[in-house]
Amino acid sequence: MTGFINYQKILIVGLGLMGGSYAQKLSALGFEVGALARRQETLDYALEHGLIAHGRIEVTREYVSQFDLVIFALYPKAFVAWVRQYQDYFKPGAVLTDVTGVKRSVVPAVQQMLRPDVEFVAAHPMAGREVYGVENSDCRIFSDANFIITPTDRNTPQGIELIRTLGCILGFRHIAMISPDEHDEMIGFLSQLTHCIAVVLMTCKDSEHLVEYTGDSFRDLTRIARINDVMWSELFMENRDVLLSQMDLFLEQFSRLREALAAGDTDTMKEMMRLSTKRRAYFDK
Amino acid sequence: MTGFINYQKILIVGLGLMGGSYAQKLSALGFEVGALARRQETLDYALEHGLIAHGRIEVTREYVSQFDLVIFALYPKAFVAWVRQYQDYFKPGAVLTDVTGVKRSVVPAVQQMLRPDVEFVAAHPMAGREVYGVENSDCRIFSDANFIITPTDRNTPQGIELIRTLGCILGFRHIAMISPDEHDEMIGFLSQLTHCIAVVLMTCKDSEHLVEYTGDSFRDLTRIARINDVMWSELFMENRDVLLSQMDLFLEQFSRLREALAAGDTDTMKEMMRLSTKRRAYFDK
Repeated sequence: MTGFINYQKILIVGLGLMGGSYAQKLSALGFEVGALARRQETLDYALEHGLIAHGRIEVTREYVSQFDLVIFALYPKAFVAWVRQYQDYFKPGAVLTDVTGVKRSVVPAVQQMLRPDVEFVAAHPMAGREVYGVENSDCRIFSDANFIITPTDRNTPQGIELIRTLGCILGFRHIAMISPDEHDEMIGFLSQLTHCIAVVLMTCKDSEHLVEYTGDSFRDLTRIARINDVMWSELFMENRDVLLSQMDLFLEQFSRLREALAAGDTDTMKEMMRLSTKRRAYFDK
Repeated sequence: MTGFINYQKILIVGLGLMGGSYAQKLSALGFEVGALARRQETLDYALEHGLIAHGRIEVTREYVSQFDLVIFALYPKAFVAWVRQYQDYFKPGAVLTDVTGVKRSVVPAVQQMLRPDVEFVAAHPMAGREVYGVENSDCRIFSDANFIITPTDRNTPQGIELIRTLGCILGFRHIAMISPDEHDEMIGFLSQLTHCIAVVLMTCKDSEHLVEYTGDSFRDLTRIARINDVMWSELFMENRDVLLSQMDLFLEQFSRLREALAAGDTDTMKEMMRLSTKRRAYFDK
């Protein structure tokens, strides 16, 4: 296996916001980017805006077998199903990667069924927007974001290095490597739990009349409450055990604060506030 | 009673972040701003930086009786106690206002004991920073914020108009009038509940090692977790019944989402996500 520059032809499967943003950046860097999408209009948009060199709505051996690197930007279950159905079409020696936001349910499933002459190196670009679809593609979302690679013992040093280089050239600020288990635990707390909270806050009240009084704090806590219900419910389900335990941890501490308030126990309230202040300060270093 | 221009001499009681920011703006506008603070160093800082024209650490009749408008920037209980102790000193016809973040426990208490020749018009500038103290004074925090006046039947149209003008010249984006009850209900949900959530999120885990993976969502939800424990525990206690019911409302909906996830009920999860998406869109109009 050789360096990234040899992976001239890159296929992106799924042209939503993330697939489109990958395509935009990789085309701008001079790679020949092809795409598979479900709708011709998606391909037309991507072609017109220079995101891709060519694309197809039908999956054929002739098209897929051209590519050295294949990036899956599909929902978790659709990704696993795609590989099951079409893996015969991959070029021998091809490297696969993904953008999936959960790893335990995806990485072993794909790696165990995969042809031995093809390698899958899983990655999660921790970037996003509150809008969706190829027409919102914007590779600038990578510049302040983390790129997480979750290698396993089925990966080669060369495969991992290739995907590390991919994260670099896409422009991510920070690249980290952790196990699929660590990834799902971390993402359950930092991302899925926070999305749960934002959704719940917005469902508490019909807040239309509250908009004019809303300060920064409520806006900040609910920015991510605009959510793609199909994608996020699938992500939640695919990480259900971890997310449930993160939700329970939150409920336990929330109830602790509630009980302290109910009992007029200001010492406990202040202690929790001082702890939160101390810990939040890590983020501002 | 005449217009704002006649209220040349303004006293600010309490020179923290909010009192200092009021002082900064009012001095810049040409008013003669005096101050009462607990520590001489606070006054020295405010004098050196042009926030005030003069100030005292001792409360005297001679000093307090000079002022036409008195702005209280104290914690709720300290404000009520101050008025009880020193109200004899006010100039006849003086107008009082405040910055207190809770109203039901403050407004009736002050209005019922107050001399009949002095008027108290309550206000809540919904602005703030995650830092405290006079040295962080910054009147620019008002420009994107709401100024809430909570008039009662003890207020005169002229008194209310004076404080409305104060909110205007301080530079607030939006000025609203609601009752003390409505205020505390609104603030319990929009501000206090969100601060509870941020504090609880930070107390869930020792997240120091998570900092490098933290995306915007966790940062957004915990920005307000840096919190003044003395002030906020007092604000929570002074609005305890309302805040407890807001916390219970949140717990109920949070548990609903948790149960849907545990049961694999993606229909309910999606329904909550679609509702939150729809409601959050009000904020972006």
